[in-house]
Amino acid sequence: MTHPTRPTILTGDRTTGPLHLGHYIGSLRARVQMQHEAKQFLLLADTQALTDNMGRRQRVTENVIEVALDYLAVGIDPAISTIVVQSQVPELAELSQYLLNLVTVARLERNPTIKEEIRLRGFERDIPAGFLTYPVSQAADITAFKATHVPVGDDQLPMIEQTNELVRRFNATVERDVLVECEAVLSAVTRLPGIDGKAKMSKSLGNAITLGSTPDEIAKAVKDMYTDPNHLRVDDPGQVEGNVVFTFLDAFEPDVQKVDELKAHYRRGGLGDSVVKRVLNERLQALIEPIRTRRRAFEADKAEVMAILRRGTLHAREVAGATLADVKRALGLTYFD
Amino acid sequence: MTHPTRPTILTGDRTTGPLHLGHYIGSLRARVQMQHEAKQFLLLADTQALTDNMGRRQRVTENVIEVALDYLAVGIDPAISTIVVQSQVPELAELSQYLLNLVTVARLERNPTIKEEIRLRGFERDIPAGFLTYPVSQAADITAFKATHVPVGDDQLPMIEQTNELVRRFNATVERDVLVECEAVLSAVTRLPGIDGKAKMSKSLGNAITLGSTPDEIAKAVKDMYTDPNHLRVDDPGQVEGNVVFTFLDAFEPDVQKVDELKAHYRRGGLGDSVVKRVLNERLQALIEPIRTRRRAFEADKAEVMAILRRGTLHAREVAGATLADVKRALGLTYFD
Repeated sequence: MTHPTRPTILTGDRTTGPLHLGHYIGSLRARVQMQHEAKQFLLLADTQALTDNMGRRQRVTENVIEVALDYLAVGIDPAISTIVVQSQVPELAELSQYLLNLVTVARLERNPTIKEEIRLRGFERDIPAGFLTYPVSQAADITAFKATHVPVGDDQLPMIEQTNELVRRFNATVERDVLVECEAVLSAVTRLPGIDGKAKMSKSLGNAITLGSTPDEIAKAVKDMYTDPNHLRVDDPGQVEGNVVFTFLDAFEPDVQKVDELKAHYRRGGLGDSVVKRVLNERLQALIEPIRTRRRAFEADKAEVMAILRRGTLHAREVAGATLADVKRALGLTYFD
Repeated sequence: MTHPTRPTILTGDRTTGPLHLGHYIGSLRARVQMQHEAKQFLLLADTQALTDNMGRRQRVTENVIEVALDYLAVGIDPAISTIVVQSQVPELAELSQYLLNLVTVARLERNPTIKEEIRLRGFERDIPAGFLTYPVSQAADITAFKATHVPVGDDQLPMIEQTNELVRRFNATVERDVLVECEAVLSAVTRLPGIDGKAKMSKSLGNAITLGSTPDEIAKAVKDMYTDPNHLRVDDPGQVEGNVVFTFLDAFEPDVQKVDELKAHYRRGGLGDSVVKRVLNERLQALIEPIRTRRRAFEADKAEVMAILRRGTLHAREVAGATLADVKRALGLTYFD
């Protein structure tokens, strides 16, 4: 499969809450860089979020603008990136419908990502059908935009594999190359833990630092951060591994030498948590301050944000519509042309 | 659930082949009558046919116009009935997508109609996901048009039940009555057997009399018709039960007394198959002749047929679009309104 010269990236977020530092380090930062090198579509995935949130749909719809604000705040430039509200691109549902015929139920049930998410959500046999089939919708999202590159965590690799299976099966069925295979772009960064040391930073777990945090909220989060529980006195040797403050310094402090010196000092004893936390607090305040400022500015002009989303969504409909037209033409579903 | 004064009927056919006398007696005849009493949508269900015919998609798409010709030939009046090409109403796919979140995989797998069709098709574990979920698409078809009545065979009752479950669940989720429950209208006629006596008349089994049959084709089909294999000589008493010629007379000969006399004569002996077949042949020739003539006339003006389908489909998009707008409003997916 050959790719066009300029890559096309499809990425996005389920709109279940505002974004936080975990998103920043795991994906947003890279997206801000990549937007200069690739055509980039960012999906505000409200439809996908609804697959297991029909009862919490208000949270899903209210967070569409919150996530959009986060995108704009971190520096996603709507002049070069396309921000798309998923539910407002009906072409995605239509494409999904055709791809659904090309995958078996058994294959969907074998998808390790889905298996794991079913386990995490405690669905067991009560999986909403829309949840089981969402990898197909995801394949529709990716292929509708003819994305060549999809940034993912390694737990999402099976989704990309399934997407490419669907692409090959569709193209084989219609005997021409209509859909485009994509490559996974693995994030270089490991997942950021919550401030409590839990494996996952998450707004709903209450262990997140969101991108709109105030200086006080940041300071409090750093103060509450999990360190080495055995590092009781300043003079004691402390442990760096699993110490969230150091994990955050590794993630956010560009001065690696400085971090290494702090680690060495902490390990041999004589460096108090409060000192390391002060360094981290300064770093995070400096990082978030301009993000928060831009976020507030956009918040004050929601009409402009909505106009950006409308333009992005319209552009997305054109692109997805062209792919869908190719798909329907290949299937012979063109009676009125 | 209250219905509007004038009922709305949703019906239709998978476009996998031209229609035959089994369709005529089982559904078409009733539709021609009902179109005067109800708002009627007839779906040329190409999308649904594709769920298990991706590899035979040409058959599916070519038969869209064939089934439309059959509708017009039997007397469906496009001025009062709406003939719709399913794949050209994207609103149905979109509505489907939301309903998919309101049913579990286990519930879909328990649907007796689906279970039976999975068995018939020999899918076992290799069920296309689109096939498992097509009751949800069917629920979208029914609810998009706010159908109050759906004509079905008794094997299709579980589909109606599932549709109404989805309606109730959707309305409960959004806490208002957006979708409308429907009633099954059971066909009064039992299924017409094939001319070979097999339980099902089917073009692909080669035991059907299609609605466009020529006089010779009708005559040959009647001549080949399965009778009583033990009725070897005219004088022998013959059996009426399971004798396809009599089954057809019961279905198509309005003069019940005449049929009863023939049956009595056949039973006591002295009535040859050829005589009964001559009566049936005359009846079928008289029935099909005007249908064939109208079919030929429409065939000669395919542009007009396509214009009818286009108008019907456009009207369907308006109706389904209004329902979808209600659905999306109820879900809060109205960012740009």
